Amino acid sequence: MNPSQTNQERYDTGIETLKTMVGDHGVSMIKQIGEFFPDFGHTLIAFGFGDLYSRETLSIQQRETITITSLITQGAMEQLPFHLHAALNVGMRPEEILEIVLHCGGYAGFPKACGALDVVRKVFQERNIVLTHK
Amino acid sequence: MNPSQTNQERYDTGIETLKTMVGDHGVSMIKQIGEFFPDFGHTLIAFGFGDLYSRETLSIQQRETITITSLITQGAMEQLPFHLHAALNVGMRPEEILEIVLHCGGYAGFPKACGALDVVRKVFQERNIVLTHK
Amino acid sequence: MNPSQTNQERYDTGIETLKTMVGDHGVSMIKQIGEFFPDFGHTLIAFGFGDLYSRETLSIQQRETITITSLITQGAMEQLPFHLHAALNVGMRPEEILEIVLHCGGYAGFPKACGALDVVRKVFQERNIVLTHK
Amino acid sequence: MNPSQTNQERYDTGIETLKTMVGDHGVSMIKQIGEFFPDFGHTLIAFGFGDLYSRETLSIQQRETITITSLITQGAMEQLPFHLHAALNVGMRPEEILEIVLHCGGYAGFPKACGALDVVRKVFQERNIVLTHK
Amino acid sequence: MNPSQTNQERYDTGIETLKTMVGDHGVSMIKQIGEFFPDFGHTLIAFGFGDLYSRETLSIQQRETITITSLITQGAMEQLPFHLHAALNVGMRPEEILEIVLHCGGYAGFPKACGALDVVRKVFQERNIVLTHK
Amino acid sequence: MNPSQTNQERYDTGIETLKTMVGDHGVSMIKQIGEFFPDFGHTLIAFGFGDLYSRETLSIQQRETITITSLITQGAMEQLPFHLHAALNVGMRPEEILEIVLHCGGYAGFPKACGALDVVRKVFQERNIVLTHK
Repeated sequence: MNPSQTNQERYDTGIETLKTMVGDHGVSMIKQIGEFFPDFGHTLIAFGFGDLYSRETLSIQQRETITITSLITQGAMEQLPFHLHAALNVGMRPEEILEIVLHCGGYAGFPKACGALDVVRKVFQERNIVLTHK
Repeated sequence: MNPSQTNQERYDTGIETLKTMVGDHGVSMIKQIGEFFPDFGHTLIAFGFGDLYSRETLSIQQRETITITSLITQGAMEQLPFHLHAALNVGMRPEEILEIVLHCGGYAGFPKACGALDVVRKVFQERNIVLTHK
Repeated sequence: MNPSQTNQERYDTGIETLKTMVGDHGVSMIKQIGEFFPDFGHTLIAFGFGDLYSRETLSIQQRETITITSLITQGAMEQLPFHLHAALNVGMRPEEILEIVLHCGGYAGFPKACGALDVVRKVFQERNIVLTHK
Repeated sequence: MNPSQTNQERYDTGIETLKTMVGDHGVSMIKQIGEFFPDFGHTLIAFGFGDLYSRETLSIQQRETITITSLITQGAMEQLPFHLHAALNVGMRPEEILEIVLHCGGYAGFPKACGALDVVRKVFQERNIVLTHK
Repeated sequence: MNPSQTNQERYDTGIETLKTMVGDHGVSMIKQIGEFFPDFGHTLIAFGFGDLYSRETLSIQQRETITITSLITQGAMEQLPFHLHAALNVGMRPEEILEIVLHCGGYAGFPKACGALDVVRKVFQERNIVLTHK
Repeated sequence: MNPSQTNQERYDTGIETLKTMVGDHGVSMIKQIGEFFPDFGHTLIAFGFGDLYSRETLSIQQRETITITSLITQGAMEQLPFHLHAALNVGMRPEEILEIVLHCGGYAGFPKACGALDVVRKVFQERNIVLTHK
């Protein structure tokens, strides 16, 4: 961590990373949270996307694998669409996302995996993703 | 899924993958579970390591990222050492594992991350992993 | 615990406390649960609101802080509106509720906090609560 | 586990058990999952219903008691209707299901129990189940 | 619920049921909790064992199936030994307990099931339970 | 959030708040985490104790109520002693802590509450806290 980095710089870094992940539309969604509760919005962007997602060592794809797995495991299904879109935007293949869900079946239990698959299906439909299975 | 694959073949595939992940010592640990409750041991190996871990689309490194994240998120800390060893054995760098723990701080909460970091520290000590931080 | 207190008295105490928390409208909501499954309704009122919420040592405001935190942490978002209304009715300030959500971001993870904030926003809208942020 | 049993046979066993639990309509619901992600559908049927639900030692009623309890405890409420229908189809009495929910109130907390009771009420209405309480 | 039942009677009912489940030794373990925090001890006995475990509709065996499943699903492994002993005392067969653990593998995930199996193994050893697997 | 506040200032604020909560001994415990993984240690102090615990609107006592409730609800019992000591250091009465545990019994389930009470008992013993119950 850079000791002289300011909160404004953390926030700006977060916005940059967010843009890569979800584009201007996604950024404005997150900014709306900040209109209701500014310090929460600031924290989400400066800490979540500035401090964590912008770090090195892991790629954003790897971070999305972690986030999606954590969301499925804790049953936070309503937060999945945002991160499924982000994952696809940064280049994860749809097959990889399905594979995370199946792997989570064994490690977080099939009820969570079934709930997640339902959300994945809706996001894929929205993006016109059609998979041709062997 | 290959419709004509037998349970014996699923089990054998699981043992092969397990060997790559944790060597003969780890395999014998898992086999001990099977001595107490054979059908559980069989399922763990044939389903967990044969059906899931041996699948394509994601590498074993990616699968360990998913498993470790799920374990941290659900607080199953006592299952972490096995998978930390496996992750390191298949080539994950210690820095990547630390990074998963930090990212989970934001997404599963810091109590889970602190609990996990304590386990990671013990496993790194056991393996004489010394990190030199910039 | 008073050894000679009867179930009827525990229930009546629960109803009294419930009235303070959510008024007649809230009481009738809880009573509807009892129409479907009487022993569940009785337990919820006599145990939850009679035995627990009516105890001394902690104020109802403190108990709502505990309940709201527990609901966020376990992801029981659909139970939040009832307790957000109760918290506001017994005098918690909207700013305190927002602060609980932000604190939970660090301790239960941001996905749970984001999910909760969405519910808080709807309840504040319903009650025409407008916050002016510094 | 029969070492020579094939994946096809595990799947067929799963379909047979599923039919007993939820009839042709339920089977086709599960099969739809397989149309979106074939290997997930196969695993759910071959592993979940073939390997687990078809085992001896516990009856399907006992297994539904376990599944319903696990769903309530982990808050996977959206998966409850399928298993409530299955439980009633294999002969569990509505009173037993209510009793599971009340018992879970003490062991998984009342928020989860309240959330579950709401789902149970809807499923009972759908099936025209009317309980006359003493 | 009997409206005229007193707290003392609820407590006495709880003690009676507890005796059936865990004998005098188990009762004194629970009573020790009450020495540290009397109202908690009272509630655990009067509510947990008096109000819930003593109800009809489900047998104590069925209630132990529910409790054990809920403990495994929520990862409360340190509470398992008490209820495993209780389950065996009221006549559950060791094979049924193992079967609950395996079923939970699919529904709560294998990490929880592995953690639970470890506890079960220790309790079986303590009671000199030896299973001869076919 | 002050846009021009630097990471160093956030960290220093965190250290100040930590000192109030757990004294020099507690600060050095947290600093040890930073020796193993500096960025995690920094984040825990700058974000957890600097950004969250140092905020206004809620007192540190209220924040400990939230943290302790969240720890109990998510079953992170190994993190409890640190926060129980902090809560007592900032002036929470032992009776209030017991009361949180009992309230959590109803809202997070009795297994979590029993597990937590065991930890509380050990911390009270360590601090020679003796409660005389009416």
